[in-house]
Amino acid sequence: MMSKKRPFRKVVIVGVGLIGGSIGMAVQKKCLADTVVGVGPKAEELKQAVERKAIDEYATDSRMIRKAVEGADLVVLAAPVAELETAARELAPALTAETVVTDVGSVKGPLVHRLEGCFSSPGRFVGGHPIAGREKSGVAAASAALFSGALCILTPTPRTAPNALETVKRFWEAIGARVVSMDPDAHDRILAAVSHLPHLVAYALVNTVLELQSRNGDLLSYSAGGFKDFTRVAASSPEMWRDICLFNRENLLAVIEAYEKTLDRLKRLMVEGNSEGLRREFERAKDVKEKLRERIP
Amino acid sequence: MMSKKRPFRKVVIVGVGLIGGSIGMAVQKKCLADTVVGVGPKAEELKQAVERKAIDEYATDSRMIRKAVEGADLVVLAAPVAELETAARELAPALTAETVVTDVGSVKGPLVHRLEGCFSSPGRFVGGHPIAGREKSGVAAASAALFSGALCILTPTPRTAPNALETVKRFWEAIGARVVSMDPDAHDRILAAVSHLPHLVAYALVNTVLELQSRNGDLLSYSAGGFKDFTRVAASSPEMWRDICLFNRENLLAVIEAYEKTLDRLKRLMVEGNSEGLRREFERAKDVKEKLRERIP
Repeated sequence: MMSKKRPFRKVVIVGVGLIGGSIGMAVQKKCLADTVVGVGPKAEELKQAVERKAIDEYATDSRMIRKAVEGADLVVLAAPVAELETAARELAPALTAETVVTDVGSVKGPLVHRLEGCFSSPGRFVGGHPIAGREKSGVAAASAALFSGALCILTPTPRTAPNALETVKRFWEAIGARVVSMDPDAHDRILAAVSHLPHLVAYALVNTVLELQSRNGDLLSYSAGGFKDFTRVAASSPEMWRDICLFNRENLLAVIEAYEKTLDRLKRLMVEGNSEGLRREFERAKDVKEKLRERIP
Repeated sequence: MMSKKRPFRKVVIVGVGLIGGSIGMAVQKKCLADTVVGVGPKAEELKQAVERKAIDEYATDSRMIRKAVEGADLVVLAAPVAELETAARELAPALTAETVVTDVGSVKGPLVHRLEGCFSSPGRFVGGHPIAGREKSGVAAASAALFSGALCILTPTPRTAPNALETVKRFWEAIGARVVSMDPDAHDRILAAVSHLPHLVAYALVNTVLELQSRNGDLLSYSAGGFKDFTRVAASSPEMWRDICLFNRENLLAVIEAYEKTLDRLKRLMVEGNSEGLRREFERAKDVKEKLRERIP
């Protein structure tokens, strides 16, 4: 019996939660690798990942990890952002000069340069960030279709080997993502505005309502559509968002400042009773939804 | 052939858009009235309302309106908030002392007292606010099921006639809403927090991203889940939200102040690098979604 040669012999996924697990399931579904190995601290979670067919086998302790990584042609770091550097340092000695390494962290910038520095062949590391996620976390919520049609931003640097970039690009495209490349710092500036600020604003709003509730009695019973959308955004992983806020602090503080200026402008229009000014502001915001619909199919 | 007596002879709906149209469709579906009459300035929209079976007949000019209202036992004011007082004054002379009048405005407070003052029997007016809506507006988006399971807040005052309140309560329950009553000012304080603030924050966020986009190039192409939720909230009617911001200005400015304090606290935690403090804030917000799920089935 003949079988088509798969693009990868061994793909190693470090951190098999929602994103890592979904990558594993997509790799298996698309028959991209002979073996998918999961690496993580919790055997229980990794067993669940095997049951969900996200990975074929797994390793939890350092000795096992060296063995597990051996012969890997692609390593995907899908651990929490704050643990990526430690994970990279632990794996690095077991990799060959040919192994391509990528990550899925929500922040890039300086972290990409630090991750490059963990490997004897820095050019084999390619930073990546698939813009996909769900409220729920963990491999139980993983799905082979999570990246279907999603955008994946790759962040090569002057050190990046062109063929490593090409490998990672083809990998993401094979599991359904649309890939764009940009500078790691540009990534962090853009995501600060379109992702990190909205999450921080949602957290601030939900906690404000909680504080008003503790002073003024039951508010939550009267919550309408708008507020519910915010609670959904604010239901994301507290640990992940803590890390994002700290890793991308400078860019996030800059966009918060811009946001506070807009809020001040709206307050001033209210205080002045500037009816037409308010209408214009709201009209401008309304159009964005249509613009997004045109852009993202 | 016997037919069951319907609770109302004639229901008049002033302003047959999304809310007014949905009320009409629900009244017709539940066979609550012998006749439903629509009143509004645009014949085109009212014709569409007849086609959608939201109303049986309609009136556009003052002379016709007097005639249309004659014999009405319930009048629902569903025009934009800023036009309610004018509409009430126009109708008042045509009403009998028995006609019950209610409205669906998103702000209550002083407006309720002003509307009461429009009628020779102020006790027959009962302020109301069904917490239901959609992004789309107009009778084309109306639905008989819009109020099914929705909360409707009634805001009686010391002047309100108990049997008028009872009539309006039963009316909303008959079209599927859960009814609660509260003081008009309490309504405005609560809605400022759980509805008006979230919308203002969404408008501010979307416009901030638009401004950053004009300076930093394309951001919208990278917008992820969080931001898209905000653009949905900010796609609501600019005219409606302008009116809400101005009518409920004092309460809204007070909750904006509370919100700015929360945002300042989050910024300080970021600047200090207070990892555990940030995690705690985000953890607290995360729980609200679960709490809401328990409350609102």
